[in-house]
Amino acid sequence: MNEDDFLEALFKRLPSPPPDLVIPPGDDCAGLRVGRGRLLLVAIDQLVGGRHYVLEGPGAAKPEEAGRKLLARNLSDIAAMGGRPLYCLTATASSPRRDARWLRRFFDGLIALAGEFGVLMVGGDLAVGIADDVASLAVLGEVGEKQVVRRSGARPGDLLFATGCFGRSVRTGHHLSFKPRCREGEWLARNGYARAMIDVSDGLLIDAHRLCRSSGVGLRLETERIPRRTPDTTLREALTDGEDYELLFAVAGKKEGRLREMWPFADVPLTEVGVFVACETPFVSDADGLSLPVEGYDHFSSFLGGIEGTTEGD
Amino acid sequence: MNEDDFLEALFKRLPSPPPDLVIPPGDDCAGLRVGRGRLLLVAIDQLVGGRHYVLEGPGAAKPEEAGRKLLARNLSDIAAMGGRPLYCLTATASSPRRDARWLRRFFDGLIALAGEFGVLMVGGDLAVGIADDVASLAVLGEVGEKQVVRRSGARPGDLLFATGCFGRSVRTGHHLSFKPRCREGEWLARNGYARAMIDVSDGLLIDAHRLCRSSGVGLRLETERIPRRTPDTTLREALTDGEDYELLFAVAGKKEGRLREMWPFADVPLTEVGVFVACETPFVSDADGLSLPVEGYDHFSSFLGGIEGTTEGD
Repeated sequence: MNEDDFLEALFKRLPSPPPDLVIPPGDDCAGLRVGRGRLLLVAIDQLVGGRHYVLEGPGAAKPEEAGRKLLARNLSDIAAMGGRPLYCLTATASSPRRDARWLRRFFDGLIALAGEFGVLMVGGDLAVGIADDVASLAVLGEVGEKQVVRRSGARPGDLLFATGCFGRSVRTGHHLSFKPRCREGEWLARNGYARAMIDVSDGLLIDAHRLCRSSGVGLRLETERIPRRTPDTTLREALTDGEDYELLFAVAGKKEGRLREMWPFADVPLTEVGVFVACETPFVSDADGLSLPVEGYDHFSSFLGGIEGTTEGD
Repeated sequence: MNEDDFLEALFKRLPSPPPDLVIPPGDDCAGLRVGRGRLLLVAIDQLVGGRHYVLEGPGAAKPEEAGRKLLARNLSDIAAMGGRPLYCLTATASSPRRDARWLRRFFDGLIALAGEFGVLMVGGDLAVGIADDVASLAVLGEVGEKQVVRRSGARPGDLLFATGCFGRSVRTGHHLSFKPRCREGEWLARNGYARAMIDVSDGLLIDAHRLCRSSGVGLRLETERIPRRTPDTTLREALTDGEDYELLFAVAGKKEGRLREMWPFADVPLTEVGVFVACETPFVSDADGLSLPVEGYDHFSSFLGGIEGTTEGD
């Protein structure tokens, strides 16, 4: 059992969603109808010191970088729905290692990125004196109900495209400095290019598999085409390292040429990396049809590994 | 410097709020205009194991109680605006002490309370293996723009009313079992009785002072009238213990009689505990005019006490 399964089991126990909840939990964001043809997008994510950034010593993140990353991860979820981020709320719990100066610098980084993306912080809660540094952020965004892109829209014959490069995100510092693909996601949604989309946080394979599972399709990855972050990044690293925060999206075959022609982001690589196929059971394989394992970064598995199957029981 | 001051300094550095942000940060919730005369209310709060509930040994909270409290605290913030809660998102970070069974029971408690109040959980993030148990919850609610009650509406001559009782919340277990005053808050707002409102989480004195500061008024408390939770609760405990999660609200003098007559919640005490007065500097005093100190539960002060005044500097 992994985090997806735990949450899915949890959400299944909830009452039927009301009609205003157009996109129930299970996608990058939930989507609530708020009138005027708009959806409010909401998501929450957390950042743990020592896990999502190095706390001390060589490679330690600056407080500004940690704060920036907390918001950036969440903006990536809004990007994956084709939305525009608007507001955020933060809850931070800090260890005695951190003084007010550290916390202020943490928010400096967060607020600077918020300014770049036109996001306003509208609420906060602070707790201090706990053993670890844990910060949560809830993000609110919006998207037209007709524009929103879900994970479930990929069809057999669609092509899988990716923005940017993959692998070695932590080693290269990309995980602290990446620019969330909000611009790109919004453009893809507005212009009707993306039929399904997800952001790659846990690794290309895991997140591609999530797209397949939501859409009920298989995927043949052209693994050799996947852009790697550095010349010595291995294929395995590109597929499973995670923390790339790039977009993976399905494009109808007939729109491929137009997408390549119109893509306005000269600084962002756009690469076709696979094709979706019909299937009985969703899968991800390489171009030769060899099944690729669903591997990547799932911090939750080790915790729940020993008790699989107990969620519905006792 | 306390948490309020830190957050206020932080929010002051943000760009001017857009017109849709009808209620900027600094109240119990922020309020965003979403059309049809409705405001979306949003807030975030966190729950730390060992601080907001006892982890182990005598008086240890059941996991269901911890999960319930995480949501209940947030519902209380919606109640304080006169709103109706609708959705929540959770982020939980758990220690190795907690297995999946604990986490499932934690959510059992949360979901049961959510069901009582018609709240739907629409997003979650789970992290495990950190030293402490820290959980955050963002709540979304709604209220009519004409009904919403802020902290800033109290006028000289208004009476201060309180729901329920005060003091010894932790000792009696009230802090785990309290019922958020959403019904009561919504009724007060819909019927135009409350001109200003706040929920008491950090203590009656601290939260009354927040009302005064936001409204620019003074307050003479009839301290002897404040209902105490148990016969042996001292006045000091009633004023400063916190965790009461009751509503404090300002009522125009001419509406007092009608309020008492119409109050439909037979099981919830309604007590007039003071009167607002004009002032140069907001204050809270007793009925004899003796100033009462702004004392209560502020976990943040000890942390920042040594570095007052540095927020705007370096």
